[in-house]
Amino acid sequence: MNKTHPPVQALLFDMFGTTTDWKGSMLAYCERFGAERGRAADWKSLVVEWRSRYKPAIEPVREGRRLWADFDELQREELDSLLPKYGMNTLSDVDRDTLVHGWHLTAPWPDTVGGLTRLKQHYMLAPLSNGTMRQLADTAKHGHLPWDLVLGADIFRNYKPAPELYRAAVALVGSPAETVMMVAAHNDDLQGAQRIGMRTAFIKRSTEDPKPTARYDYVASDFLDLAAQLGA
Amino acid sequence: MNKTHPPVQALLFDMFGTTTDWKGSMLAYCERFGAERGRAADWKSLVVEWRSRYKPAIEPVREGRRLWADFDELQREELDSLLPKYGMNTLSDVDRDTLVHGWHLTAPWPDTVGGLTRLKQHYMLAPLSNGTMRQLADTAKHGHLPWDLVLGADIFRNYKPAPELYRAAVALVGSPAETVMMVAAHNDDLQGAQRIGMRTAFIKRSTEDPKPTARYDYVASDFLDLAAQLGA
Repeated sequence: MNKTHPPVQALLFDMFGTTTDWKGSMLAYCERFGAERGRAADWKSLVVEWRSRYKPAIEPVREGRRLWADFDELQREELDSLLPKYGMNTLSDVDRDTLVHGWHLTAPWPDTVGGLTRLKQHYMLAPLSNGTMRQLADTAKHGHLPWDLVLGADIFRNYKPAPELYRAAVALVGSPAETVMMVAAHNDDLQGAQRIGMRTAFIKRSTEDPKPTARYDYVASDFLDLAAQLGA
Repeated sequence: MNKTHPPVQALLFDMFGTTTDWKGSMLAYCERFGAERGRAADWKSLVVEWRSRYKPAIEPVREGRRLWADFDELQREELDSLLPKYGMNTLSDVDRDTLVHGWHLTAPWPDTVGGLTRLKQHYMLAPLSNGTMRQLADTAKHGHLPWDLVLGADIFRNYKPAPELYRAAVALVGSPAETVMMVAAHNDDLQGAQRIGMRTAFIKRSTEDPKPTARYDYVASDFLDLAAQLGA
Protein backbone atom coordinates (compact mmCIF):
# COMPACT_ATOMS: atom_id res chain seq x y z
CA MET A 1 0.00 0.00 0.00
CA ASN A 2 1.10 3.53 -0.78
CA LYS A 3 2.53 4.70 2.54
CA THR A 4 1.58 8.33 1.95
CA HIS A 5 -2.13 7.57 2.43
CA PRO A 6 -3.63 8.49 5.80
CA PRO A 7 -4.60 5.44 7.87
CA VAL A 8 -7.74 3.54 6.88
CA GLN A 9 -10.62 4.11 9.32
CA ALA A 10 -13.51 2.21 7.79
CA LEU A 11 -13.99 -0.86 5.60
CA LEU A 12 -17.06 -1.20 3.36
CA PHE A 13 -17.87 -4.70 2.14
CA ASP A 14 -19.67 -5.90 -0.91
CA MET A 15 -22.17 -8.51 0.26
CA PHE A 16 -23.12 -11.05 -2.45
CA GLY A 17 -20.14 -13.16 -3.40
CA THR A 18 -17.66 -11.20 -1.28
CA THR A 19 -19.10 -11.57 2.23
CA THR A 20 -21.60 -14.36 1.56
CA ASP A 21 -21.68 -17.39 -0.71
CA TRP A 22 -24.82 -16.53 -2.69
CA LYS A 23 -24.34 -19.45 -5.05
CA GLY A 24 -24.05 -22.26 -2.52
CA SER A 25 -26.68 -20.66 -0.28
CA MET A 26 -29.28 -20.07 -2.97
CA LEU A 27 -28.74 -23.52 -4.46
CA ALA A 28 -29.29 -25.18 -1.05
CA TYR A 29 -32.28 -22.90 -0.36
CA CYS A 30 -33.95 -23.62 -3.72
CA GLU A 31 -33.29 -27.37 -3.54
CA ARG A 32 -34.86 -27.47 -0.06
CA PHE A 33 -37.80 -25.50 -1.40
CA GLY A 34 -38.12 -27.91 -4.34
CA ALA A 35 -37.99 -30.97 -2.08
CA GLU A 36 -40.64 -29.54 0.27
CA ARG A 37 -42.96 -28.55 -2.60
CA GLY A 38 -42.24 -31.65 -4.70
CA ARG A 39 -40.91 -29.45 -7.52
CA ALA A 40 -38.14 -31.08 -9.51
CA ALA A 41 -36.13 -28.56 -11.54
CA ASP A 42 -32.63 -27.72 -12.65
CA TRP A 43 -32.19 -25.43 -9.64
CA LYS A 44 -28.50 -24.94 -10.26
CA SER A 45 -29.04 -23.48 -13.72
CA LEU A 46 -31.97 -21.43 -12.47
CA VAL A 47 -29.94 -19.86 -9.64
CA VAL A 48 -27.01 -19.03 -11.92
CA GLU A 49 -29.27 -17.60 -14.62
CA TRP A 50 -31.23 -15.62 -12.01
CA ARG A 51 -28.04 -14.05 -10.71
CA SER A 52 -26.76 -13.32 -14.22
CA ARG A 53 -29.82 -11.15 -14.82
CA TYR A 54 -29.11 -8.91 -11.86
CA LYS A 55 -26.68 -6.56 -13.58
CA PRO A 56 -28.89 -5.88 -16.61
CA ALA A 57 -31.80 -5.36 -14.17
CA ILE A 58 -30.12 -2.62 -12.12
CA GLU A 59 -28.69 -0.79 -15.11
CA PRO A 60 -31.82 1.18 -16.13
CA VAL A 61 -32.22 2.35 -12.51
CA ARG A 62 -28.57 3.37 -12.23
CA GLU A 63 -28.79 5.24 -15.52
CA GLY A 64 -31.97 7.05 -14.52
CA ARG A 65 -34.07 5.41 -17.26
CA ARG A 66 -36.20 3.67 -14.64
CA LEU A 67 -37.54 4.94 -11.30
CA TRP A 68 -36.12 3.41 -8.15
CA ALA A 69 -36.91 -0.29 -7.76
CA ASP A 70 -35.24 -2.24 -4.97
CA PHE A 71 -33.42 -5.56 -5.08
CA ASP A 72 -36.46 -7.57 -3.93
CA GLU A 73 -38.62 -6.10 -6.69
CA LEU A 74 -35.99 -6.68 -9.36
CA GLN A 75 -35.24 -10.24 -8.21
CA ARG A 76 -38.97 -11.01 -8.27
CA GLU A 77 -39.36 -9.65 -11.82
CA GLU A 78 -36.40 -11.68 -13.03
CA LEU A 79 -37.68 -14.80 -11.32
CA ASP A 80 -41.11 -14.33 -12.92
CA SER A 81 -39.51 -14.10 -16.34
CA LEU A 82 -37.39 -17.22 -15.74
CA LEU A 83 -39.92 -19.64 -14.24
CA PRO A 84 -41.68 -20.66 -17.48
CA LYS A 85 -38.37 -21.83 -18.95
CA TYR A 86 -37.88 -24.05 -15.89
CA GLY A 87 -41.39 -25.48 -16.07
CA MET A 88 -42.67 -23.60 -13.02
CA ASN A 89 -45.03 -20.99 -14.43
CA THR A 90 -47.75 -22.30 -12.10
CA LEU A 91 -45.78 -21.35 -8.97
CA SER A 92 -47.93 -19.26 -6.59
CA ASP A 93 -47.20 -15.69 -5.57
CA VAL A 94 -46.35 -16.81 -2.05
CA ASP A 95 -43.90 -19.42 -3.35
CA ARG A 96 -42.25 -16.85 -5.61
CA ASP A 97 -41.82 -14.50 -2.65
CA THR A 98 -40.38 -17.39 -0.65
CA LEU A 99 -37.75 -17.95 -3.35
CA VAL A 100 -36.91 -14.22 -3.48
CA HIS A 101 -36.54 -14.26 0.31
CA GLY A 102 -33.65 -16.69 -0.12
CA TRP A 103 -31.55 -13.67 -1.09
CA HIS A 104 -32.07 -12.38 2.49
CA LEU A 105 -30.45 -15.47 3.97
CA THR A 106 -27.25 -16.10 2.05
CA ALA A 107 -24.60 -17.56 4.35
CA PRO A 108 -21.16 -16.11 5.12
CA TRP A 109 -18.06 -17.76 3.67
CA PRO A 110 -16.19 -19.84 6.29
CA ASP A 111 -13.63 -17.05 6.92
CA THR A 112 -16.12 -14.17 6.98
CA VAL A 113 -17.17 -13.94 10.64
CA GLY A 114 -13.68 -14.62 11.97
CA GLY A 115 -12.16 -12.03 9.65
CA LEU A 116 -14.77 -9.37 10.43
CA THR A 117 -14.42 -9.98 14.17
CA ARG A 118 -10.69 -9.29 13.97
CA LEU A 119 -11.13 -6.26 11.68
CA LYS A 120 -13.85 -4.80 13.93
CA GLN A 121 -11.31 -4.18 16.68
CA HIS A 122 -9.52 -1.71 14.42
CA TYR A 123 -12.00 -0.36 11.88
CA MET A 124 -15.56 0.76 11.39
CA LEU A 125 -17.20 -2.04 9.36
CA ALA A 126 -20.26 -1.85 7.13
CA PRO A 127 -21.67 -3.65 4.13
CA LEU A 128 -22.14 -1.37 1.12
CA SER A 129 -24.39 -3.42 -1.07
CA ASN A 130 -26.96 -3.20 -3.83
CA GLY A 131 -29.27 -5.12 -1.49
CA THR A 132 -31.84 -3.39 0.72
CA MET A 133 -31.30 -2.45 4.35
CA ARG A 134 -33.74 -5.14 5.43
CA GLN A 135 -32.05 -7.75 3.28
CA LEU A 136 -28.64 -6.85 4.72
CA ALA A 137 -30.02 -6.84 8.27
CA ASP A 138 -31.66 -10.24 7.74
CA THR A 139 -28.41 -11.60 6.32
CA ALA A 140 -26.42 -10.20 9.24
CA LYS A 141 -28.83 -11.59 11.83
CA HIS A 142 -28.88 -14.98 10.10
CA GLY A 143 -25.08 -15.15 9.70
CA HIS A 144 -24.04 -13.22 12.85
CA LEU A 145 -22.14 -10.57 10.92
CA PRO A 146 -20.75 -7.99 13.36
CA TRP A 147 -21.33 -4.76 11.39
CA ASP A 148 -21.05 -1.29 12.93
CA LEU A 149 -23.32 0.21 10.28
CA VAL A 150 -25.37 -1.16 7.40
CA LEU A 151 -25.49 0.71 4.09
CA GLY A 152 -28.08 -0.60 1.66
CA ALA A 153 -28.85 0.73 -1.79
CA ASP A 154 -32.32 1.83 -0.66
CA ILE A 155 -30.71 4.60 1.42
CA PHE A 156 -29.29 6.04 -1.79
CA ARG A 157 -31.95 4.89 -4.26
CA ASN A 158 -29.13 4.11 -6.63
CA TYR A 159 -26.87 1.16 -7.41
CA LYS A 160 -23.15 0.51 -7.39
CA PRO A 161 -20.98 1.37 -9.23
CA ALA A 162 -22.63 4.82 -9.49
CA PRO A 163 -20.12 7.35 -8.11
CA GLU A 164 -22.90 9.26 -6.29
CA LEU A 165 -23.60 6.16 -4.19
CA TYR A 166 -19.99 5.77 -3.02
CA ARG A 167 -19.78 9.50 -2.28
CA ALA A 168 -22.96 9.46 -0.24
CA ALA A 169 -21.84 6.31 1.59
CA VAL A 170 -18.51 7.87 2.52
CA ALA A 171 -20.36 10.97 3.79
CA LEU A 172 -22.50 8.80 6.07
CA VAL A 173 -19.41 6.97 7.33
CA GLY A 174 -18.06 10.41 8.19
CA SER A 175 -14.43 9.89 7.17
CA PRO A 176 -12.51 11.22 4.15
CA ALA A 177 -12.74 8.95 1.07
CA GLU A 178 -9.02 8.13 1.17
CA THR A 179 -9.51 6.59 4.65
CA VAL A 180 -12.41 4.37 3.59
CA MET A 181 -11.67 1.06 1.86
CA MET A 182 -14.04 -0.86 -0.41
CA VAL A 183 -13.62 -4.63 -0.05
CA ALA A 184 -15.02 -6.66 -2.93
CA ALA A 185 -14.55 -9.67 -5.19
CA HIS A 186 -15.69 -7.56 -8.16
CA ASN A 187 -13.53 -5.32 -10.29
CA ASP A 188 -16.35 -2.97 -11.29
CA ASP A 189 -17.20 -2.31 -7.64
CA LEU A 190 -13.58 -1.58 -6.68
CA GLN A 191 -13.02 0.63 -9.71
CA GLY A 192 -16.19 2.55 -8.86
CA ALA A 193 -14.82 3.16 -5.37
CA GLN A 194 -11.40 4.09 -6.74
CA ARG A 195 -13.00 6.69 -9.00
CA ILE A 196 -14.02 8.77 -5.97
CA GLY A 197 -10.71 8.32 -4.17
CA MET A 198 -11.50 5.39 -1.89
CA ARG A 199 -8.99 2.69 -1.01
CA THR A 200 -9.58 -0.82 -2.35
CA ALA A 201 -9.10 -4.48 -1.43
CA PHE A 202 -9.77 -7.31 -3.88
CA ILE A 203 -10.88 -10.60 -2.34
CA LYS A 204 -10.48 -13.78 -4.37
CA ARG A 205 -13.74 -15.73 -4.22
CA SER A 206 -14.23 -18.91 -6.21
CA THR A 207 -17.63 -17.83 -7.58
CA GLU A 208 -16.70 -14.22 -8.48
CA ASP A 209 -14.22 -12.31 -10.66
CA PRO A 210 -11.25 -14.62 -11.25
CA LYS A 211 -8.60 -11.91 -10.79
CA PRO A 212 -7.89 -8.23 -10.25
CA THR A 213 -7.96 -6.24 -13.51
CA ALA A 214 -6.55 -3.04 -11.98
CA ARG A 215 -4.13 -2.09 -9.26
CA TYR A 216 -5.69 -2.18 -5.79
CA ASP A 217 -4.25 -1.37 -2.37
CA TYR A 218 -4.67 -4.98 -1.25
CA VAL A 219 -5.34 -8.35 -2.85
CA ALA A 220 -6.31 -11.04 -0.35
CA SER A 221 -7.36 -14.67 -0.51
CA ASP A 222 -10.10 -14.16 2.10
CA PHE A 223 -11.10 -11.95 5.07
CA LEU A 224 -8.59 -13.59 7.44
CA ASP A 225 -5.81 -12.89 4.96
CA LEU A 226 -7.03 -9.29 4.64
CA ALA A 227 -7.02 -8.94 8.45
CA ALA A 228 -3.48 -10.32 8.57
CA GLN A 229 -2.29 -7.94 5.82
CA LEU A 230 -3.85 -5.00 7.69
CA GLY A 231 -2.22 -6.12 10.94
CA ALA A 232 -5.60 -6.75 12.57
CA MET B 1 -51.42 -3.67 24.03
CA ASN B 2 -54.32 -3.80 21.62
CA LYS B 3 -54.44 -7.46 20.64
CA THR B 4 -55.71 -6.73 17.14
CA HIS B 5 -52.33 -5.31 16.10
CA PRO B 6 -50.11 -7.59 14.03
CA PRO B 7 -47.00 -8.74 15.92
CA VAL B 8 -44.16 -6.26 16.35
CA GLN B 9 -41.17 -7.06 14.11
CA ALA B 10 -38.77 -4.19 14.77
CA LEU B 11 -37.91 -1.84 17.63
CA LEU B 12 -36.45 1.61 16.94
CA PHE B 13 -34.71 3.30 19.85
CA ASP B 14 -34.15 6.91 20.65
CA MET B 15 -30.49 7.28 21.60
CA PHE B 16 -29.78 10.27 23.87
CA GLY B 17 -31.44 9.81 27.24
CA THR B 18 -33.30 6.64 26.25
CA THR B 19 -30.45 4.28 25.30
CA THR B 20 -27.54 6.25 26.75
CA ASP B 21 -27.07 8.49 29.77
CA TRP B 22 -25.99 11.66 27.96
CA LYS B 23 -26.01 13.71 31.15
CA GLY B 24 -23.77 11.53 33.29
CA SER B 25 -21.54 10.72 30.32
CA MET B 26 -21.07 14.29 29.09
CA LEU B 27 -20.49 15.57 32.62
CA ALA B 28 -17.77 12.96 33.22
CA TYR B 29 -16.28 13.62 29.76
CA CYS B 30 -16.19 17.40 30.23
CA GLU B 31 -14.80 17.19 33.77
CA ARG B 32 -12.01 14.90 32.54
CA PHE B 33 -11.33 17.35 29.73
CA GLY B 34 -11.26 20.24 32.24
CA ALA B 35 -8.90 18.40 34.56
CA GLU B 36 -6.51 17.51 31.71
CA ARG B 37 -6.52 21.06 30.31
CA GLY B 38 -6.53 22.76 33.73
CA ARG B 39 -9.84 24.45 32.89
CA ALA B 40 -12.06 24.99 35.92
CA ALA B 41 -15.67 25.62 34.96
CA ASP B 42 -19.22 24.85 36.01
CA TRP B 43 -19.29 21.87 33.67
CA LYS B 44 -22.60 20.60 35.00
CA SER B 45 -24.45 23.80 34.10
CA LEU B 46 -22.66 23.98 30.76
CA VAL B 47 -23.66 20.41 29.79
CA VAL B 48 -27.30 20.97 30.80
CA GLU B 49 -27.50 24.30 29.01
CA TRP B 50 -25.78 22.83 25.93
CA ARG B 51 -28.34 20.05 25.76
CA SER B 52 -31.24 22.47 26.33
CA ARG B 53 -30.27 24.29 23.15
CA TYR B 54 -30.53 21.21 21.00
CA LYS B 55 -34.26 21.40 20.32
CA PRO B 56 -34.29 25.06 19.29
CA ALA B 57 -31.25 24.28 17.09
CA ILE B 58 -32.90 21.50 15.08
CA GLU B 59 -36.21 23.30 14.65
CA PRO B 60 -35.24 25.56 11.72
CA VAL B 61 -33.87 22.51 9.86
CA ARG B 62 -36.98 20.44 10.55
CA GLU B 63 -39.20 23.31 9.42
CA GLY B 64 -37.22 23.83 6.21
CA ARG B 65 -36.09 27.34 7.20
CA ARG B 66 -32.48 26.17 7.27
CA LEU B 67 -30.56 23.82 4.97
CA TRP B 68 -29.46 20.50 6.38
CA ALA B 69 -26.92 20.78 9.20
CA ASP B 70 -25.99 17.67 11.15
CA PHE B 71 -25.83 17.11 14.89
CA ASP B 72 -22.07 17.70 15.09
CA GLU B 73 -22.37 21.05 13.33
CA LEU B 74 -25.28 22.19 15.49
CA GLN B 75 -23.62 21.05 18.73
CA ARG B 76 -20.48 22.95 17.76
CA GLU B 77 -22.42 26.15 17.02
CA GLU B 78 -24.24 25.94 20.34
CA LEU B 79 -21.01 25.26 22.19
CA ASP B 80 -19.36 28.26 20.53
CA SER B 81 -22.21 30.47 21.65
CA LEU B 82 -22.05 29.16 25.24
CA LEU B 83 -18.32 29.21 25.94
CA PRO B 84 -17.95 32.97 26.64
CA LYS B 85 -20.57 32.71 29.39
CA TYR B 86 -18.50 29.95 31.01
CA GLY B 87 -15.25 31.90 30.73
CA MET B 88 -13.81 29.74 27.96
CA ASN B 89 -13.91 31.91 24.86
CA THR B 90 -10.18 31.24 24.37
CA LEU B 91 -10.70 27.50 23.87
CA SER B 92 -9.01 26.31 20.65
CA ASP B 93 -10.80 24.82 17.66
CA VAL B 94 -9.33 21.41 18.40
CA ASP B 95 -10.51 21.56 22.01
CA ARG B 96 -14.00 22.56 20.91
CA ASP B 97 -14.12 19.60 18.51
CA THR B 98 -12.94 17.37 21.34
CA LEU B 99 -15.86 18.51 23.48
CA VAL B 100 -18.33 17.97 20.63
CA HIS B 101 -16.88 14.48 20.15
CA GLY B 102 -18.10 13.63 23.66
CA TRP B 103 -21.57 13.26 22.12
CA HIS B 104 -20.17 10.30 20.12
CA LEU B 105 -19.26 8.45 23.30
CA THR B 106 -22.24 8.65 25.64
CA ALA B 107 -22.50 5.45 27.69
CA PRO B 108 -25.44 3.04 27.83
CA TRP B 109 -27.64 2.94 30.92
CA PRO B 110 -26.87 -0.10 33.11
CA ASP B 111 -29.86 -2.07 31.71
CA THR B 112 -29.32 -1.12 28.05
CA VAL B 113 -27.00 -3.84 26.74
CA GLY B 114 -28.71 -6.63 28.68
CA GLY B 115 -32.14 -5.50 27.49
CA LEU B 116 -31.08 -5.12 23.86
CA THR B 117 -29.37 -8.51 23.89
CA ARG B 118 -32.63 -10.17 24.99
CA LEU B 119 -34.75 -8.16 22.55
CA LYS B 120 -32.38 -8.92 19.66
CA GLN B 121 -33.36 -12.61 19.77
CA HIS B 122 -36.91 -11.65 18.80
CA TYR B 123 -36.83 -8.33 16.96
CA MET B 124 -34.91 -6.26 14.46
CA LEU B 125 -33.23 -3.52 16.55
CA ALA B 126 -32.02 -0.10 15.41
CA PRO B 127 -31.45 3.31 16.89
CA LEU B 128 -33.55 6.01 15.19
CA SER B 129 -31.85 9.15 16.37
CA ASN B 130 -31.26 12.77 15.52
CA GLY B 131 -27.53 11.97 15.75
CA THR B 132 -25.43 11.15 12.69
CA MET B 133 -24.66 7.64 11.45
CA ARG B 134 -21.05 8.04 12.54
CA GLN B 135 -22.04 9.30 15.95
CA LEU B 136 -24.39 6.34 16.44
CA ALA B 137 -21.77 3.89 15.18
CA ASP B 138 -19.13 5.38 17.51
CA THR B 139 -21.57 5.16 20.43
CA ALA B 140 -22.44 1.55 19.57
CA LYS B 141 -18.79 0.54 19.25
CA HIS B 142 -17.90 2.29 22.50
CA GLY B 143 -20.85 0.84 24.43
CA HIS B 144 -21.17 -2.55 22.66
CA LEU B 145 -24.74 -1.93 21.52
CA PRO B 146 -25.91 -4.91 19.44
CA TRP B 147 -27.91 -3.14 16.72
CA ASP B 148 -29.09 -4.85 13.54
CA LEU B 149 -29.29 -1.54 11.67
CA VAL B 150 -28.38 2.05 12.45
CA LEU B 151 -30.67 4.87 11.34
CA GLY B 152 -29.18 8.33 11.77
CA ALA B 153 -30.79 11.63 10.87
CA ASP B 154 -28.19 12.22 8.15
CA ILE B 155 -29.79 9.44 6.09
CA PHE B 156 -32.99 11.47 6.03
CA ARG B 157 -31.55 14.98 6.28
CA ASN B 158 -34.38 15.76 8.64
CA TYR B 159 -35.03 15.57 12.37
CA LYS B 160 -37.51 13.81 14.62
CA PRO B 161 -40.39 14.32 15.18
CA ALA B 162 -40.91 15.11 11.46
CA PRO B 163 -43.41 12.52 10.13
CA GLU B 164 -41.41 12.12 6.89
CA LEU B 165 -38.45 10.85 8.90
CA TYR B 166 -40.46 8.12 10.67
CA ARG B 167 -42.06 7.11 7.37
CA ALA B 168 -38.71 6.86 5.60
CA ALA B 169 -37.22 4.93 8.54
CA VAL B 170 -40.06 2.42 8.49
CA ALA B 171 -39.60 1.98 4.73
CA LEU B 172 -35.91 1.16 5.26
CA VAL B 173 -36.79 -1.30 8.03
CA GLY B 174 -39.06 -2.95 5.47
CA SER B 175 -42.01 -3.76 7.74
CA PRO B 176 -45.47 -2.09 7.97
CA ALA B 177 -45.59 0.86 10.40
CA GLU B 178 -47.95 -0.97 12.77
CA THR B 179 -45.30 -3.66 13.29
CA VAL B 180 -42.51 -1.18 14.11
CA MET B 181 -42.26 0.19 17.64
CA MET B 182 -40.58 3.43 18.68
CA VAL B 183 -38.94 3.18 22.10
CA ALA B 184 -38.20 6.52 23.77
CA ALA B 185 -38.16 8.46 27.01
CA HIS B 186 -39.64 11.47 25.18
CA ASN B 187 -43.30 12.15 24.56
CA ASP B 188 -42.75 14.23 21.41
CA ASP B 189 -40.78 11.38 19.81
CA LEU B 190 -43.43 8.76 20.62
CA GLN B 191 -46.26 10.98 19.48
CA GLY B 192 -44.40 11.64 16.23
CA ALA B 193 -44.17 7.89 15.69
CA GLN B 194 -47.82 7.37 16.64
CA ARG B 195 -48.87 9.94 14.06
CA ILE B 196 -47.72 7.65 11.24
CA GLY B 197 -49.18 4.51 12.79
CA MET B 198 -46.15 3.09 14.60
CA ARG B 199 -46.37 1.30 17.94
CA THR B 200 -44.84 3.01 20.98
CA ALA B 201 -43.06 2.22 24.24
CA PHE B 202 -42.29 4.88 26.85
CA ILE B 203 -39.19 4.27 28.97
CA LYS B 204 -38.88 6.09 32.30
CA ARG B 205 -35.44 7.64 32.53
CA SER B 206 -34.42 9.85 35.44
CA THR B 207 -32.99 12.60 33.20
CA GLU B 208 -35.82 12.69 30.62
CA ASP B 209 -39.60 13.27 30.45
CA PRO B 210 -41.00 12.52 33.91
CA LYS B 211 -44.09 10.67 32.66
CA PRO B 212 -46.13 9.62 29.63
CA THR B 213 -48.50 12.34 28.45
CA ALA B 214 -50.40 10.12 26.00
CA ARG B 215 -51.47 6.52 25.77
CA TYR B 216 -48.69 4.25 24.52
CA ASP B 217 -48.61 0.53 23.87
CA TYR B 218 -46.06 -0.02 26.63
CA VAL B 219 -44.67 1.92 29.57
CA ALA B 220 -41.52 0.39 31.06
CA SER B 221 -39.06 1.27 33.79
CA ASP B 222 -36.06 0.26 31.63
CA PHE B 223 -35.04 -2.00 28.73
CA LEU B 224 -35.08 -5.17 30.86
CA ASP B 225 -38.63 -4.38 31.94
CA LEU B 226 -39.57 -3.77 28.29
CA ALA B 227 -38.03 -7.12 27.32
CA ALA B 228 -39.99 -8.83 30.10
CA GLN B 229 -43.26 -7.19 29.03
CA LEU B 230 -42.64 -8.25 25.43
CA GLY B 231 -41.88 -11.81 26.56
CA ALA B 232 -38.29 -11.56 25.31
